[in-house]
Amino acid sequence: MSMAPGDLPPKDAVAVIFVSQRTEADEAGYERAGAAMAALAARQPGYLGMDSARGADGLGITVSYWADEASARAWRAHAEHAATRDVGRARWYDSYRMIATRVTRAYDWHRAAAPDTPD
Amino acid sequence: MSMAPGDLPPKDAVAVIFVSQRTEADEAGYERAGAAMAALAARQPGYLGMDSARGADGLGITVSYWADEASARAWRAHAEHAATRDVGRARWYDSYRMIATRVTRAYDWHRAAAPDTPD
Repeated sequence: MSMAPGDLPPKDAVAVIFVSQRTEADEAGYERAGAAMAALAARQPGYLGMDSARGADGLGITVSYWADEASARAWRAHAEHAATRDVGRARWYDSYRMIATRVTRAYDWHRAAAPDTPD
Repeated sequence: MSMAPGDLPPKDAVAVIFVSQRTEADEAGYERAGAAMAALAARQPGYLGMDSARGADGLGITVSYWADEASARAWRAHAEHAATRDVGRARWYDSYRMIATRVTRAYDWHRAAAPDTPD
């Protein structure tokens, strides 16, 4: 899952970095809850986007981007999110850490389309 | 790859979020360069740690943590790092974005060891 290409969080946006180590339990439940949380986050005020990746070793990183500290905190306090976090501690995660940050600068790069088709 | 458990970047540390979409080219060269860059980064002044994950869809997130803006910028300008970035644009990445941030708060959680062995 990734923030739309070309979208960059503006200076002073909040980026919340969530690094987690999965247990091997309940993959189906975890996937369902992850999709539900992503959809719910996207409907919250101040939501800017999300990037997420998990490797075969079970280590995952999700970064969610928020307009300001208030919207990031409101998402953290959202009742459904908090309930899912409880399930995460009970079943899905061996450990995690959360690092809240403020964006100072951002840029992106995209490969130019190859001129591989004749006119 | 992950920052050591229990290690958290302090307030005002710099977290550099690198989100990239891999091409399918040159997996061996990419893996070699990634390991070399991780080892080189770890020897730089101000390096605090790194978290990295890449999913089967080729989307990867690497977060490197630095003591301050100066050490993060010095790593960005490091000649060997810059040369590897050029190879990355030529071969390994379809797109990427880099988001530099400053840490405002952090916490972690670890599953308690299960009392599953009798005394």
